[in-house]
Amino acid sequence: MTLHSTFPSDRLAIGIDLGGTQVKGALVDRESGEILRTALLPTRDGEFENETPVFAMQVAGIIAELETGGARLPVGLAAPGLAAPHGRCITWMPGRMHGLEGFDWPEFLQRETRVLNDAQAALLGEAWTGAAKGCRDVFMVTLGTGVGGAVLTGGRLLTGASGRGGHLGHMCVDVNAPKDVFNTPGSLEAMIGNATVRERSGGRFASTLELVQAAQSGDEAAMRAWHDSVRKLAAALVSLVNVFDPEVIILGGGIASGAGTALLEPLERWLDEYEWRPGGLKVPLKMASAGEWAGALGVVRGLRSEE
Amino acid sequence: MTLHSTFPSDRLAIGIDLGGTQVKGALVDRESGEILRTALLPTRDGEFENETPVFAMQVAGIIAELETGGARLPVGLAAPGLAAPHGRCITWMPGRMHGLEGFDWPEFLQRETRVLNDAQAALLGEAWTGAAKGCRDVFMVTLGTGVGGAVLTGGRLLTGASGRGGHLGHMCVDVNAPKDVFNTPGSLEAMIGNATVRERSGGRFASTLELVQAAQSGDEAAMRAWHDSVRKLAAALVSLVNVFDPEVIILGGGIASGAGTALLEPLERWLDEYEWRPGGLKVPLKMASAGEWAGALGVVRGLRSEE
Repeated sequence: MTLHSTFPSDRLAIGIDLGGTQVKGALVDRESGEILRTALLPTRDGEFENETPVFAMQVAGIIAELETGGARLPVGLAAPGLAAPHGRCITWMPGRMHGLEGFDWPEFLQRETRVLNDAQAALLGEAWTGAAKGCRDVFMVTLGTGVGGAVLTGGRLLTGASGRGGHLGHMCVDVNAPKDVFNTPGSLEAMIGNATVRERSGGRFASTLELVQAAQSGDEAAMRAWHDSVRKLAAALVSLVNVFDPEVIILGGGIASGAGTALLEPLERWLDEYEWRPGGLKVPLKMASAGEWAGALGVVRGLRSEE
Repeated sequence: MTLHSTFPSDRLAIGIDLGGTQVKGALVDRESGEILRTALLPTRDGEFENETPVFAMQVAGIIAELETGGARLPVGLAAPGLAAPHGRCITWMPGRMHGLEGFDWPEFLQRETRVLNDAQAALLGEAWTGAAKGCRDVFMVTLGTGVGGAVLTGGRLLTGASGRGGHLGHMCVDVNAPKDVFNTPGSLEAMIGNATVRERSGGRFASTLELVQAAQSGDEAAMRAWHDSVRKLAAALVSLVNVFDPEVIILGGGIASGAGTALLEPLERWLDEYEWRPGGLKVPLKMASAGEWAGALGVVRGLRSEE
């Protein structure tokens, strides 16, 4: 193989991003973060063969496709749910990805394998080749159906004692609002995620991006609802700035990339209002830029013990 | 000296806690955390001699008193304000402790010296010999005039990029409430610190502890105000649990020690209501126990590069 002659196998690793609909795999140069080859398969969540979840066989299939040389390359695997601190499995993922909880990946794949939460993996990808490149103190908030997050502090991933560190969507910003799915009153997730947009818009919109589009076309009720969401996001971000003191804030997820300046412009105005800036220090706000392969890249970066 | 024959000088260090009214010093066994001798002097904030702040000479005096052997012992120094990441000085402390900002302690003391923020030092003390003993993932919230905080994550102190990490009192819990001194809307500090108790009690109380005492003696308005503060504290603590995933939560400061069960009982009820407990995991809540020397101990612990 040409690849294996150019890149000795100890420079190569495979990153897998196991999502709800697709399994994405990438053969990655561990030194540069360059993606040398990719492969995709459907996840087929809910299907089993001989009691093994089909998604696990899809993962093995992608690895076989990428690993055409002789060596058994190390694998980083990003998945939804809480990753165990030892990195062998996801310990907690209720409601979907059936069979994922407790599934022992190094045993199944018979090789060095480290499992990370998908949001944590995406941040490692951003810190390797994306908007947070080279940063040691940074957090990312992903705005989608829910609101996810991940944190690097002092160059290390914040995983916490049980692996649930960095659940930034489940911070309270309005103690007088109803509790969310994790019992947090008035959480950031409930204020801007797609899952609550119908309630927040009087039943008018099915996604936050529809709400944003209506706001941009001059719908006054939509403008009020959207700016209220942005204000609450700003309150959460300044809280996180005061807690983490990052070099940069990264925004990711479909709402961030879809809304673009319709998010950034009002958000920057609210940050001017709410952010603590000792000595004039303003923390820059950036959109995630490592793209759809951020997670697969990030888990390869996570194979280094430091992260 | 008997001490120096029992404890070789490479096992000894001096911890200084430079507070607004008192300078506290302790000679500490770096291996066990045992305090071998202490000394106290008034801070005399605002006084200068030949352009040197008097508190710096008080620090030097305490060191001379504790260091009766021949060796120049390393010094850890805890002070209010933001500590520089390199640990030579406090970079930001507006309004009081005149002359502290930018004061170069290793140069002045002519020895190895590391400066830490006082809340961070207190947490290191708790993690060494107090309520968080042995913990690698833990945060402390101190309830007093303001609300302070500090965080250990993966065994390391969270300092952040510029040294302001861990400002847990400046998290928003009520986005619709007024901004605090750092521009955070409805911050935890504004919800429970002494500085706002007059507003929160219709001008009736000068300190949160007075409010607590009135609530305990059956004053209904005081009970409502106090329980509202406790509920907001619970909302902030569950947010921090979701962000940091700690082994334990430590509460410190005069309001916590003074209120005791009048704080803990309603707080535990609100945590039952608000805390995310995947797999039944409840994070224990403990009162700080390392005592008034926690800061002086903690800065000695902080001389190890790991923390």
